[in-house]
Amino acid sequence: MPETVKPDEKAEEGAPAPPQHRNIVLTGFGGLKMLKVQRRASNAPGPGEVSIRVKACGLNFVDLMVRQGVLDSPPKTPLVMGFECAGEVEALGDDTAGIAVGDHVMAFTDYGAWGEVVVAPASLVFKMPSNMSYAEGAALPMNYLTAYIMLFDIANLHKGMSVFAHNIGGGVGHAISQLCRTVEDVTLYGTASAHKHEVVKANLTSVIDRSADYLHEIRKLSPEGVDIVLDCMCGEDTNKGISLLKPMGKYVLYGSSNIVTGETKSFFSFAKSWWQVDKVSPIKLYDENKTISGLQLRHLAFQQGQTAYIRSAMNRLLQLYTQGKIKPVVDSTWAFEDVADAMQKMHDRKNIGKLILDPSMEPKPKAQTQQSTDEAAPQEATAENKPEAEENKDASAVNGQ
Amino acid sequence: MPETVKPDEKAEEGAPAPPQHRNIVLTGFGGLKMLKVQRRASNAPGPGEVSIRVKACGLNFVDLMVRQGVLDSPPKTPLVMGFECAGEVEALGDDTAGIAVGDHVMAFTDYGAWGEVVVAPASLVFKMPSNMSYAEGAALPMNYLTAYIMLFDIANLHKGMSVFAHNIGGGVGHAISQLCRTVEDVTLYGTASAHKHEVVKANLTSVIDRSADYLHEIRKLSPEGVDIVLDCMCGEDTNKGISLLKPMGKYVLYGSSNIVTGETKSFFSFAKSWWQVDKVSPIKLYDENKTISGLQLRHLAFQQGQTAYIRSAMNRLLQLYTQGKIKPVVDSTWAFEDVADAMQKMHDRKNIGKLILDPSMEPKPKAQTQQSTDEAAPQEATAENKPEAEENKDASAVNGQ
Repeated sequence: MPETVKPDEKAEEGAPAPPQHRNIVLTGFGGLKMLKVQRRASNAPGPGEVSIRVKACGLNFVDLMVRQGVLDSPPKTPLVMGFECAGEVEALGDDTAGIAVGDHVMAFTDYGAWGEVVVAPASLVFKMPSNMSYAEGAALPMNYLTAYIMLFDIANLHKGMSVFAHNIGGGVGHAISQLCRTVEDVTLYGTASAHKHEVVKANLTSVIDRSADYLHEIRKLSPEGVDIVLDCMCGEDTNKGISLLKPMGKYVLYGSSNIVTGETKSFFSFAKSWWQVDKVSPIKLYDENKTISGLQLRHLAFQQGQTAYIRSAMNRLLQLYTQGKIKPVVDSTWAFEDVADAMQKMHDRKNIGKLILDPSMEPKPKAQTQQSTDEAAPQEATAENKPEAEENKDASAVNGQ
Repeated sequence: MPETVKPDEKAEEGAPAPPQHRNIVLTGFGGLKMLKVQRRASNAPGPGEVSIRVKACGLNFVDLMVRQGVLDSPPKTPLVMGFECAGEVEALGDDTAGIAVGDHVMAFTDYGAWGEVVVAPASLVFKMPSNMSYAEGAALPMNYLTAYIMLFDIANLHKGMSVFAHNIGGGVGHAISQLCRTVEDVTLYGTASAHKHEVVKANLTSVIDRSADYLHEIRKLSPEGVDIVLDCMCGEDTNKGISLLKPMGKYVLYGSSNIVTGETKSFFSFAKSWWQVDKVSPIKLYDENKTISGLQLRHLAFQQGQTAYIRSAMNRLLQLYTQGKIKPVVDSTWAFEDVADAMQKMHDRKNIGKLILDPSMEPKPKAQTQQSTDEAAPQEATAENKPEAEENKDASAVNGQ
């Protein structure tokens, strides 16, 4: 186990500088150009920490919100982005019983997951089953924990119930549809962009077009409403979701993607998403026999410290994985330098399943001029930006910027 | 199976008048004196209905609210009061498969349960296990269904959780404490009036005095709060209850007994109980990882028609009864004529467990002059009021009025 050494002491002793590794750094809030691949010194793991040689990182919608600076308590920039990764344990601090060097693990982190080497708290580092790929490991923590906790610990899904979820073709959407299938006779309605319907329609009872009036569509299919609504949109969709509930129905808010409209923060979308949400009187819930809930997994883990609970949910998920009942769906894998393209794909709702970043992957050839998919995010070929060409802390431009 | 005959037809044919039976009738909203024991004609059961020769009726706090006229959608008076009873099936309408004349049953009804003979919809008539007494059968439906649905279908109680409930010595309170004990390692905090502590303290982890600052007391015992709050009080207790939740905690509102202060409706208490309840933004629940719910069993059954669901919950309860894991606790049994005294006892929170009304019971001797327990409800001996002395529809005074 490596001794943890304070950087200052090392410097005084004239020891060699700590090793440097590539990370995806957010240099300030804003558009895609605020993302840079930079080399940074990696610290040795302290007590309760694990150093992971990262093989794959998960991209989540919340990363777009971090970049735009629309989270409620925005972090300070510059920062290494990312909330989840998978890789091989390279070094251990003290108090990390149960994890060994060489273990294949996935980690749920409070930022900092998008690097070649990541130091993560052991409390949220999970051993991967032997048949799980690194891409699957990086795809699993946030999406599957969110879906699992909502369905089983909050909404108490059981036989014969009906569920409605937005964006059923995304990362959480796939987790929701797989987890619903672990319970007998569950009806699942979900929205997806038209081009995804062919691919996702086998995963659920009825897919509803993202641009359709889903209240109307669901009421045609199920006039009395549904038992469970899982809402990642917020804003007016919150009120709609609550109105869709059957007696004894449960609404869970787990995101606010309506805040994200263009490439950069829109104060209008931000404010609208808050204004539009009606406050609810508990007396109304009593009259109507309804439940409303919220789940913010990062807050639960990092502000509220519920790591033991999250581990118990992960254990239940890993059982389902081992039984072959769940399996993350990876849309595509991207080099660190291509993170902007990956984010743009997510912003455009073009991904079907999870977007993965791979630190060892070669970026797309610079000569490849892509067609712009969004005026706010022009795609331009850039100069040399391969990791091999970089030295020390110089930032490499991110493809497309 | 008796033929169902319209009363008008019978009258035309000059048939004998339908049999008359004693009922507890609310003659208008107000104090205890609005209750009368009256003889009324009992209809034969129509399709889907069951006629029950009643042996015991359950008194609930909501009956006090009915009498005062403080329910949200008050019924029209005069009406036969009561929401639950137990007895022997005397006659069946069509479409009542599964129930036979002579069966011992309990019924959950939309008013009308406090009579010698009650006609109830078969959908909410449940066969009693052979070892269940009529008093237990009358005590079970509302209190145990409410407690069961809150703990298991809404709040998803499981091993290691903590629960707080008001009025742990009452009917729902006993159901909550017994049901909590069916799950391993559950911590239960509850409030009760001081004189009940000795009796109820074995049922829970810690009993808190009804007059104490329970927020303060629970935070001393469990600084991080509790997993589940079950609130029958409403008003400012709603806000307090939500504030007591741990991360992932669930608050359930199932009553509004704060509305009831004196013997008659207090517009001040009524309004205060509504004003004081803060509306909650779903975004706040998302930030705090909390759930808020409401359960109004009568609404679920009679306005929302969820009888199939309620039957499934009752089946699970009856399994627990048969396994000896739950058993209603009866505080005392009262004659119909003594319903005012029974209500006063409940109002004064003096009952430990359920108050039962027995239509065959002799009222307390008229000469017994009780001491007044509440200025608003003077207890005076009254003139002859035994059922035997009554003929046809004349109202008998209710003891104490």
